[in-house]
Amino acid sequence: MAISQTNFAWATLLEIGSPEPGRPHRLRDHLVRALRTAIRDGRLTEGAAVPPSRALAEELGCSRWAVTEAYGQLIAEGYLTARVGSATRVSWSPDTTPPYPRAHPAPAPPPVRYDLAPGLPDLRAFPRRRWADAVRAVTGSAVHYDLGLPDPAGHPGVRTTVAQYLRRSRGADARAETVTVCAGVTDGLLRTCRALRAEGIADLAVEHPGWGRLRDAATSAGLRPHPVPVDHDGLRVDDLVRTPARAVIVGAAHQFPTGTVLSPARRARLVRWARDVNGYVIEDDYDAEFRYDHHPVAVMQGMDPRRVFLLGSVSKTLSPALGLGWLVAPAALTQALAAANPVAAAPPVLDQLALATFIDRGWYDAHLRAARRRFRTRRDLLIRTLGAQLPEARAAGTAAGLHILLHLPDDTDTHATVRAAATAGLRLADLDDYRVQHSADRALVLGYGNITDPEIPPAVALLRGALATRTPKAERPA
Amino acid sequence: MAISQTNFAWATLLEIGSPEPGRPHRLRDHLVRALRTAIRDGRLTEGAAVPPSRALAEELGCSRWAVTEAYGQLIAEGYLTARVGSATRVSWSPDTTPPYPRAHPAPAPPPVRYDLAPGLPDLRAFPRRRWADAVRAVTGSAVHYDLGLPDPAGHPGVRTTVAQYLRRSRGADARAETVTVCAGVTDGLLRTCRALRAEGIADLAVEHPGWGRLRDAATSAGLRPHPVPVDHDGLRVDDLVRTPARAVIVGAAHQFPTGTVLSPARRARLVRWARDVNGYVIEDDYDAEFRYDHHPVAVMQGMDPRRVFLLGSVSKTLSPALGLGWLVAPAALTQALAAANPVAAAPPVLDQLALATFIDRGWYDAHLRAARRRFRTRRDLLIRTLGAQLPEARAAGTAAGLHILLHLPDDTDTHATVRAAATAGLRLADLDDYRVQHSADRALVLGYGNITDPEIPPAVALLRGALATRTPKAERPA
Repeated sequence: MAISQTNFAWATLLEIGSPEPGRPHRLRDHLVRALRTAIRDGRLTEGAAVPPSRALAEELGCSRWAVTEAYGQLIAEGYLTARVGSATRVSWSPDTTPPYPRAHPAPAPPPVRYDLAPGLPDLRAFPRRRWADAVRAVTGSAVHYDLGLPDPAGHPGVRTTVAQYLRRSRGADARAETVTVCAGVTDGLLRTCRALRAEGIADLAVEHPGWGRLRDAATSAGLRPHPVPVDHDGLRVDDLVRTPARAVIVGAAHQFPTGTVLSPARRARLVRWARDVNGYVIEDDYDAEFRYDHHPVAVMQGMDPRRVFLLGSVSKTLSPALGLGWLVAPAALTQALAAANPVAAAPPVLDQLALATFIDRGWYDAHLRAARRRFRTRRDLLIRTLGAQLPEARAAGTAAGLHILLHLPDDTDTHATVRAAATAGLRLADLDDYRVQHSADRALVLGYGNITDPEIPPAVALLRGALATRTPKAERPA
Repeated sequence: MAISQTNFAWATLLEIGSPEPGRPHRLRDHLVRALRTAIRDGRLTEGAAVPPSRALAEELGCSRWAVTEAYGQLIAEGYLTARVGSATRVSWSPDTTPPYPRAHPAPAPPPVRYDLAPGLPDLRAFPRRRWADAVRAVTGSAVHYDLGLPDPAGHPGVRTTVAQYLRRSRGADARAETVTVCAGVTDGLLRTCRALRAEGIADLAVEHPGWGRLRDAATSAGLRPHPVPVDHDGLRVDDLVRTPARAVIVGAAHQFPTGTVLSPARRARLVRWARDVNGYVIEDDYDAEFRYDHHPVAVMQGMDPRRVFLLGSVSKTLSPALGLGWLVAPAALTQALAAANPVAAAPPVLDQLALATFIDRGWYDAHLRAARRRFRTRRDLLIRTLGAQLPEARAAGTAAGLHILLHLPDDTDTHATVRAAATAGLRLADLDDYRVQHSADRALVLGYGNITDPEIPPAVALLRGALATRTPKAERPA
């Protein structure tokens, strides 16, 4: 309903009672909000005159200052227009076309009681106190220049610490100049793909099955992904050489989702392939910190730092919520990497500095040691429980990492199993979710990072209860 | 120099003296590193046999276990190969082609004594203690689920707090569902541009002069930027309508670098233009918190939340090193925004939660109030000092923000002035640096965020001394 000046009680419109004496600023702010709302929602229509400031001040029993200030504010915002010798008028009207149909919100998923889906470390074991201590220490000690515009490749001191860590702990060939601190593996891959694009590389081989997010990142950076099969020795280099790709991203230490370890022969062959095609290997150092049968295997990047990019993060060791990772690039490509990423942002500097402090104080190594012990015990418990409860299933990819592959009988309906489990509060992941095309191989990807030991037996019992078999087509009711 | 097994003292190659008894793990690790290094740098060549483990253990005086473990590790890493009935041999050779020429590092810039370049808030006034308190509080109180995979649009609770803040403090029309927490204005613009691209918009109007990083972001997201001139009333809408753009990014509150405030009439016209072309305004709420002549002007986004995107950050209020900002999108486009940004990462969750705590406890408002007083005083001092020391110059764009425009006489060589000042330790910025083409208008962009009050008189004196005039062409020596 439109309102004209003459037949209208402004105090009612503006919802102003008796103003408190001596609070003119508060009254001005209230007037601004009330007039703005009335104009935005169409109660005060375009062209309508607002009362002279003296008249409105009298009606509201307030100072004229508050009214003229409020009018001035709304004139500056474009809602009112004042002309000399004329009334101040409303100069704005809301959009009256019907709004777009509102999207219906998705139904809330059932609550998760047990989490056997992959992708998360033990969130309950996040070292909260030490992380907060590290942030407090660096927030106090950072020079004020550190709080300015961040270096897009990462804080120089942090790059030094990360390079030392990667040399010492992962056998990498890394220096501060070749390390970029980034937001994680996806961010590192995006930056790498943009640099490869600038180098004239348009095709990227990706593992199949593999992590869809890496394919998305490659596409988003303008590269065409080419799925290459993974077998029990990791990525099939024989199939790789038949693609037009001159670059490949590979999880050498523990492939996601199959859990295979790239075989020693394939490691060497892959790096030689990169030399032969004048191309690059992008090594996703996924889950590498957690190797249970022997010491963590050093990164391929150290075999040929001129041909291998190395990506890593703390997402699987501390928490994906930290958004901290690294990228080691061939020295000859570090300038191209920066040039290809002109608007890439560094992670927050205080977080970078906290990570460096966390590493330098030995807390990261201590956390990894404790986590490795905990995950080995949990893996053993999960495999024992599966063996006892689901003898028809076969676990694979168990040598490392935070997930295993559980092969199921051929007549299993994994899709229905995942749905039935979700209804019962158990999160699972179907191997098919990581494939471009479905396969005859029925399997679940079971993550044991984010579940407690006592939860494993009831979770496996729920899984057993959720197992669904496919109805053979001939027997289906018509 | 290559080494063969027969004529070679392995203890020397491996730099192993008398091993400490009872430290077999340490010896194994040392052996792994030493052998790996010798293979990588070509001292142990491909095909060479390493000694039988028993023989090497005897030579080194260590346990055979340490040697077999070390060999096993290097076999897994692809450096050695073992065959039944044959010696274990080196199976890797380093790349022997000459390395790429190394780029020469850029010479170090002269040290900065005084900073009058724009773009930074008062880094010395960053509220370190309160920020660390906020991080510690949320690191203790976050539920462990918050440490899992972050919501790419931001933590739901933080989005609620930011929406409330923007409604209350900036007059925005924002709800948790329409707010995305992002890494800053550049990140927000990248996400917005990708969504516009998916909506069929290929052209984006940008202010000229303007911030090159925003142009870069638009280009990086696949949009063509169209520079539109800015005059003393802000972006010239008459010129905008002649471009093919259906979207424009504009700094309404305090344009960078001219410092102009978008006039009330232009604000309204710009939003009406978006309705007419079925397009969008992207409002960069730059510097808006610091308005000195009256209250901060509410955002345009509130005039038509279906046509205006709002971008903001804490980069100019707290620190650009925090990497925290927000994006408010039209409700009808929030799903398209998420779909167009499948690999966008949220800022670290603990930082998001810390920001919400910082706002909820009233610390952000208190910080802004104190900063506004400090910056007003500093602006007045800068303008007074410039008036006394450089009467031939004229300051503009002083109503708001953290920078002003200093117009200089037509014969000033601003480029030479900036260089001369840099040599003397004074950072300055030339208006021409923000233009696509140079102009006859000689001006500097002076930022007073990151300088102390006592530094202003000596900084202006240095500026006065650095002022260079152009030699008229006719008088130049041939």
